[in-house]
Amino acid sequence: MRLLPCLIAAALLALPAHASTPGSGLDAADIAAAEGLRDRAIQGSQAWALVESLTTEVGPRIAGSPADARAVAWAKAKFEALGFDKVYLEPVTFPVWVRGHERAEVLAPFPQPLVITALGGSVGTPAGGVEAEVVAFADLAALSAAPEGSLKGKIAYISNRMVRFKDGRGYGPAVGARANGAVEAAKKGALAVVIRSIGTSNDRFGHTGTMRYLPEVPRIPAAALSNPDADLLSHMVQRGQPVRLRLDIATETRGDYTSHNVIGEIRGRDLPDEVVTIGGHLDSWDQGTGAIDDGAGVGLTMAAGALIGELERAPRRTVRVIAYANEEQGLYGGKAYAAARAAAGQIPGHQLSAESDFGAGRIYALRAGVDPAAWPVIERIGQVLAPLGIATEATGGSPGPDVGPIVALGAPWAQLAQDGTDYFDYHHTANDTLDKIDPKALDQQVAAYAVLAYLAAETDVDFGAVPVKPAN
Amino acid sequence: MRLLPCLIAAALLALPAHASTPGSGLDAADIAAAEGLRDRAIQGSQAWALVESLTTEVGPRIAGSPADARAVAWAKAKFEALGFDKVYLEPVTFPVWVRGHERAEVLAPFPQPLVITALGGSVGTPAGGVEAEVVAFADLAALSAAPEGSLKGKIAYISNRMVRFKDGRGYGPAVGARANGAVEAAKKGALAVVIRSIGTSNDRFGHTGTMRYLPEVPRIPAAALSNPDADLLSHMVQRGQPVRLRLDIATETRGDYTSHNVIGEIRGRDLPDEVVTIGGHLDSWDQGTGAIDDGAGVGLTMAAGALIGELERAPRRTVRVIAYANEEQGLYGGKAYAAARAAAGQIPGHQLSAESDFGAGRIYALRAGVDPAAWPVIERIGQVLAPLGIATEATGGSPGPDVGPIVALGAPWAQLAQDGTDYFDYHHTANDTLDKIDPKALDQQVAAYAVLAYLAAETDVDFGAVPVKPAN
Repeated sequence: MRLLPCLIAAALLALPAHASTPGSGLDAADIAAAEGLRDRAIQGSQAWALVESLTTEVGPRIAGSPADARAVAWAKAKFEALGFDKVYLEPVTFPVWVRGHERAEVLAPFPQPLVITALGGSVGTPAGGVEAEVVAFADLAALSAAPEGSLKGKIAYISNRMVRFKDGRGYGPAVGARANGAVEAAKKGALAVVIRSIGTSNDRFGHTGTMRYLPEVPRIPAAALSNPDADLLSHMVQRGQPVRLRLDIATETRGDYTSHNVIGEIRGRDLPDEVVTIGGHLDSWDQGTGAIDDGAGVGLTMAAGALIGELERAPRRTVRVIAYANEEQGLYGGKAYAAARAAAGQIPGHQLSAESDFGAGRIYALRAGVDPAAWPVIERIGQVLAPLGIATEATGGSPGPDVGPIVALGAPWAQLAQDGTDYFDYHHTANDTLDKIDPKALDQQVAAYAVLAYLAAETDVDFGAVPVKPAN
Repeated sequence: MRLLPCLIAAALLALPAHASTPGSGLDAADIAAAEGLRDRAIQGSQAWALVESLTTEVGPRIAGSPADARAVAWAKAKFEALGFDKVYLEPVTFPVWVRGHERAEVLAPFPQPLVITALGGSVGTPAGGVEAEVVAFADLAALSAAPEGSLKGKIAYISNRMVRFKDGRGYGPAVGARANGAVEAAKKGALAVVIRSIGTSNDRFGHTGTMRYLPEVPRIPAAALSNPDADLLSHMVQRGQPVRLRLDIATETRGDYTSHNVIGEIRGRDLPDEVVTIGGHLDSWDQGTGAIDDGAGVGLTMAAGALIGELERAPRRTVRVIAYANEEQGLYGGKAYAAARAAAGQIPGHQLSAESDFGAGRIYALRAGVDPAAWPVIERIGQVLAPLGIATEATGGSPGPDVGPIVALGAPWAQLAQDGTDYFDYHHTANDTLDKIDPKALDQQVAAYAVLAYLAAETDVDFGAVPVKPAN
């Protein structure tokens, strides 16, 4: 008994590296091709050069801006230069939000400027700004519990802190303050709301991101203080004297703009109408150059697709790389993509979808939402990924944000989970720049996406589109 | 022979901890008192609370601003509250420089904004800004070697990188670009100069700091790009197409302002006219809250002085804690202090001077510039500091910046060298905020300054003012 585990391990080691797995629909030649893709990517991929090109030649590319159009042209040209079989655009329409200026200062009792940034979608202050006393709340729940009318003529301040985790799970509990702070504060009569940034660094940058209004609640300006400025404001408030703040924010929401999802395909050799998709989102917020969010996702999935395109024999199914439009302001690209597939009756052929939108940290886990009958394929893919430090996990995970809408229509998904320990240090700030990316980590991700996309496209096992749920 | 070192070590260990050292002028009770100061500081000092107070209640305090006056009032009130025997102000006069706005953008071929900050003392651009092609240089020497007139109508860009070292020695070789870039660029006909920030982080902040003009050379605007923006500009320049930049900088230099050195003293019990000084500088740049540069130095030397003031018996000599005015823009406080001592014939009584102005990292070395006959005192002080992880080094070192002027007049100095590995990540940026300070590291520094000041004031050994060198 005591020797048995060793014997099993020895037996496993004795298996040929390219052995197929029953039920995977993959043979030794397929595995060898996937291993070749993996090993070539690890030796050095085109991903970093693509992100360098996007951040240098386009830079910040908030949806609906002139740079959005330049980014679309950039992506189309890159797909073409990389030799994709088919490159095309699909329209994505959304309202345009524009940041103007944003300034904050403490007027009393300790006058000094504060670093803030307007939240995406926020209205501005009246011209000339607002000046009011700050009322502090530990979190959104505390604000929601404030008496009706108690914030009349005040500025609400929510100080909740995001906690750092590898998988980013500190974001969910904290981000409600950003999403709903304005509505909750306005319900109590506040003139404006400021929040501690939903981010993990102590660098003096405000973290932007979307917020929402409700039709029946007055729209008030919403901004994020950098975390050091939130510390500062909290220290002032703790002294017990009234703290008066001045906010001067200009923003504009304009009419609809039509951008595009940019798509490059490697056509499947046997089953071209069955599709495996990988991708990232092409838009960014307006302050950084959108390197980790999400130049990395775009660059590495383009590079992974291009590697597959260089194979002598294309996989059975089509590999589609998608650079989604306007993820940041409401998953517009992912929604438009899913709606177009649904309208064309293409959900059943949509075999497996993955998106990279969690920075540029190394991938540590493969997860998937597929028909259990297709799980042997996921496991076989996981075996090829294992030397990259990637574990296959049978539970948990979720599709990327732009994949969510098509998954909601029944499409299967996979997730290559990344180490996001420092993702929220840079995310949605001016500090999201190229230097934050480790080129070797990017190559590891290209390797993983190339293996995943290739083997999912090479197998003929059906990943199992589930029936579309009726809308409710 | 082989056993001898062990025997010597054993003999040293057998010495009573409070043993006096011949030639130190210190007895066992003095050493015990110093050890008591050290151990109380390590258990928790007032330094962090002082820095928190200064950064929260005053914040950025560029010399000559309304906040400068608030900082002077703050320091005076704190010295008084801490129980110093004598608290007084000495005038320091200097011209006032004020930052207005500062904006930069690439116009072509890849339009996008860049993060810059004007260098201290820089003139602004003409109203509306300047637009010109960038000419890049690897360093100041390369710019200086450019042909006369070759930069006519251009913007010079110097891309040299500061290298990170524990002792900050990467600063000297890099900072010439900041100090002299404008003069060298103007000599060649440039309209403006931009430099890579003289700093070690890859956070998207421009690092400001002083620069100089020469009377015979036209004054052109000078600004620092954040390091990620310098990467970006270099990547654009490397593509070989002309890069057009737009700079729009507003600054103002106003007439003279009189601020103050703020001084608190613990009066010596026997030799009150012999003085040991410690201190930091009270002013900061205008963007951060001046936590590490130099709220830390002010707070920790105040706390160290206050600890000495709490002793039942004051040391023989006077301990003077100095919060210097306007260090940042030209050591005005240190120069005024030295000039006042020289005018009063007080240089010979000026026993030992030290300044903390290198951030809030732990102290790792004691160095000094004293009469060799007084070296046993330094060694004895070093023995009390050793449990703090501080080594006594017989060579090297230099006085703090504000101590330099009085040292130039012959006064002896000591240095408590700090770990500055990350100092230039934050120095002269908006990111110089309270959260960058480890309170426990600050306590270690308070312990070291308290021991140094107390024992240097308790001994009657003369540290040996050297004759004033004739000016040349």
